[in-house]
Amino acid sequence: MKLNKNKDTKILIIGLGLIGGSYAIALKKKGYTVKAITKEESSVRYAMEHKIVDYATTAVEEALIKEADLIVFALYPTIFLEWIKSYQHLFRPGTVITDVTGVKCCIVYDIQNLLRDDVEFIAAHPMAGRESSGVENSTDKIFENANYIVVPTEKNTPEAIELCMELGRELGFRRVSLLSPEEHDKMIGFLSQLTHCIAVSLMCTNGDPLLCEYTGDSFRDLTRIAKINESMWSELFMLNQDILLQQMDAFIEEISSFRSLLASGDAEGMREKMRCSTERRMQFDRK
Amino acid sequence: MKLNKNKDTKILIIGLGLIGGSYAIALKKKGYTVKAITKEESSVRYAMEHKIVDYATTAVEEALIKEADLIVFALYPTIFLEWIKSYQHLFRPGTVITDVTGVKCCIVYDIQNLLRDDVEFIAAHPMAGRESSGVENSTDKIFENANYIVVPTEKNTPEAIELCMELGRELGFRRVSLLSPEEHDKMIGFLSQLTHCIAVSLMCTNGDPLLCEYTGDSFRDLTRIAKINESMWSELFMLNQDILLQQMDAFIEEISSFRSLLASGDAEGMREKMRCSTERRMQFDRK
Repeated sequence: MKLNKNKDTKILIIGLGLIGGSYAIALKKKGYTVKAITKEESSVRYAMEHKIVDYATTAVEEALIKEADLIVFALYPTIFLEWIKSYQHLFRPGTVITDVTGVKCCIVYDIQNLLRDDVEFIAAHPMAGRESSGVENSTDKIFENANYIVVPTEKNTPEAIELCMELGRELGFRRVSLLSPEEHDKMIGFLSQLTHCIAVSLMCTNGDPLLCEYTGDSFRDLTRIAKINESMWSELFMLNQDILLQQMDAFIEEISSFRSLLASGDAEGMREKMRCSTERRMQFDRK
Repeated sequence: MKLNKNKDTKILIIGLGLIGGSYAIALKKKGYTVKAITKEESSVRYAMEHKIVDYATTAVEEALIKEADLIVFALYPTIFLEWIKSYQHLFRPGTVITDVTGVKCCIVYDIQNLLRDDVEFIAAHPMAGRESSGVENSTDKIFENANYIVVPTEKNTPEAIELCMELGRELGFRRVSLLSPEEHDKMIGFLSQLTHCIAVSLMCTNGDPLLCEYTGDSFRDLTRIAKINESMWSELFMLNQDILLQQMDAFIEEISSFRSLLASGDAEGMREKMRCSTERRMQFDRK
């Protein structure tokens, strides 16, 4: 199967939140037929009124699932697993399914193991988001400068991997790449989960209401992601617990060692750390 | 004395770096006569060629100092102190001097104590900057959304305080306010210095060169300030050592407690922290 606008590839999205809605917007713009099943009646109404999808319903309609060529699961990880258990008998043989889950080891193998042999699950992680959730905040702009990571296992076919990468390109991501589930979770534990822990902790450190009167850009930038969807992120943290604990330990060790340099008045030691951070950060600007 | 464009208020800037140059640009646009004394011949050449100042020199010219109504010191803290010791005999009686130093307790009292009685020093902190230093990177845009804090002591006159606040408004700062040196250093220790320690430490935690291939906005935002002027910041950290150590300890304690919640699988405890950070961060959006 290939994504093919002329042949009217039918895409079904399960879960119309921020990411599901943004997928729908991007794919409709590209000419695909996009339908959706989601939990809340209010999301269905919003998505239909704003023409975000061609059709949406709160019912798990067998016909919708059967006609879909590609199904995107944009659900919380645990709900995704439950959904597959309950409804996988409705898939048409040959259907390809993918997801948007932010952790992989804990979900990809489980889904692939319990999935019917005639349906293929190829995992993906769109590294995009914003501070407000829900379909009402959907926009394909969040994909523009973002990365899309396809996360195959040995069970995946080259065709499904290529289809999933094509999906990332069609969605408008800046960069589409491949990682194993293990590589993915380690990378995300550092780049995304640890940064959210830091932002939340920094914000919780000081409750002085006068702070916002004096704040500059650096504090604003560091705490932008401290406005956080607590249900989703606490679940993601728990699902990547061991790796995130390792990353937190490494960071706490590093900042504690910086603290020791300051406490002992070792200005040259601090400058050494700053030169290291400056050099590494410059690499990020070039990309 | 008041800032008065019609009477041709003469402003002298000592130190043409990023901040000194940006002051010059903003004040020239407003019609003031701005001259400068700076260390490097290359900065003099650049500032003159780009009409950033009306006149600049590397020499400590007595006539320049005598004719100035307001002198702005845009130097590193220790150099500022040395300059006053060496050249304060050149000030005209009644001259008002101000500064741009990022820490206050360690410098304001010392300067005021050693300064001649017929010259007044009113301290200020323009909370603005960018990742690149030097007069070549000067721009008055950095003041647009930034805060300007006037930091008076009991020795200051209402006239000098008002003059300094007017300077902040003329420079184009979004907000001009007042803090005592002690309040200022505590605020800055948390909002600015701690955030730089965090960004540097986060960047030093992981040297994997592949990271920049997968990074998203949250990591970029958190580490923007990890590209840092190590000479200036190590000096600022040392000059606010006790307060910064307290702030680092409070943050390390907070992130360690978040780590404990994760380690023990206390998802509700993590959500509680996230609700706290979300609520606090929303206060910052309203301002």
